Amino acid sequence: MYGLHNLGVPRVSQDQLDARRKEILTGARTCFARHGYEGATVRRLEEEIGLSRGAIFHHFRDKDSLFLAVAEDDAATMVATVAQHGLVQVMRDLLSSAAGAAEPDVTGWLGSQLEVSRRLRTDPEFATRWAARSEAVAAATRERLQRQLEAGVLRADVPIGVLAQFLELAYDGLVLHLATGRPPQDLEAVLNLVEAAVRRT
Amino acid sequence: MYGLHNLGVPRVSQDQLDARRKEILTGARTCFARHGYEGATVRRLEEEIGLSRGAIFHHFRDKDSLFLAVAEDDAATMVATVAQHGLVQVMRDLLSSAAGAAEPDVTGWLGSQLEVSRRLRTDPEFATRWAARSEAVAAATRERLQRQLEAGVLRADVPIGVLAQFLELAYDGLVLHLATGRPPQDLEAVLNLVEAAVRRT
Repeated sequence: MYGLHNLGVPRVSQDQLDARRKEILTGARTCFARHGYEGATVRRLEEEIGLSRGAIFHHFRDKDSLFLAVAEDDAATMVATVAQHGLVQVMRDLLSSAAGAAEPDVTGWLGSQLEVSRRLRTDPEFATRWAARSEAVAAATRERLQRQLEAGVLRADVPIGVLAQFLELAYDGLVLHLATGRPPQDLEAVLNLVEAAVRRT
Repeated sequence: MYGLHNLGVPRVSQDQLDARRKEILTGARTCFARHGYEGATVRRLEEEIGLSRGAIFHHFRDKDSLFLAVAEDDAATMVATVAQHGLVQVMRDLLSSAAGAAEPDVTGWLGSQLEVSRRLRTDPEFATRWAARSEAVAAATRERLQRQLEAGVLRADVPIGVLAQFLELAYDGLVLHLATGRPPQDLEAVLNLVEAAVRRT
């Protein structure tokens, strides 16, 4: 016996599902960054995303799953960029997009980074679930540094783990600086200094 | 004619006033860090400080003045340490106190730093009032670097302003790292790298 969805109603394609999912994540990212996790009510999520709660929670089990999906999506993008261009390039991209913007992008990616930081601080269960994703970025950073060491462009007198943590410290500092709306000042020259500090001299 | 307070009632000494003010700031710092600015209600402030609202707001005009006084107190302490020992030493102190603690000190100084960051992001009026205090720490950092340059221990090929911003970036990164409860890992070695990056080689 045929189900209802086969009575001439076209099946939704995977592409359409993916596009819808991406649309939900984009709106949710803005909403979480603007109002914080607790402040992002279902009503506000509906308004920002432009879909009903039924449509949203057809794709994501609950608000917590939605938040985690936004954060995972960000982490995946970052892992890809780090693997290809390195963490310093991620910082340069972040800086140039912040310098070009009329006001700090606290409702997009930066805001979502800070909201992840806040939940790490206030929600131990989230911190546990997040640990694995956070480690993926660190691993991508270490792997790229290893390749640079083999190519002879990295300093060899400091362990790779320390160099990776140094870059992560600079990255965290940049996120806090930009997300709090402080001006970019000479940060481009600062990033040159960060890069030089891990290179073979 | 004598006022009531001269009829044998002892005047409160400046020392007592200072001690009371300090007591209020300590409790308020914990309360703001634990609950955030909005969450630190007058009732919670009374409980944390151990004084009535009448006693608290005899010393501070309102909650906003109290928050600003906590933040200024922190900034003044930091300026004094930076002037004497440098920003890297502030970071080392921060790291060793975090490494020794059973759990991240998010209700004390670190938490108040993050709460200042959050208000900078969400409250433009506060950001304006705060700019001058923030500049004091930056100025102390630049002055110390200038003395180190004259003493011949600082690298001379990068402008002092850039070196100061590099140290501030590392400081912000450390605050975000520790305040989100991440483990100290090899951060001591990372700080050595930060210090080496600004020194004459």
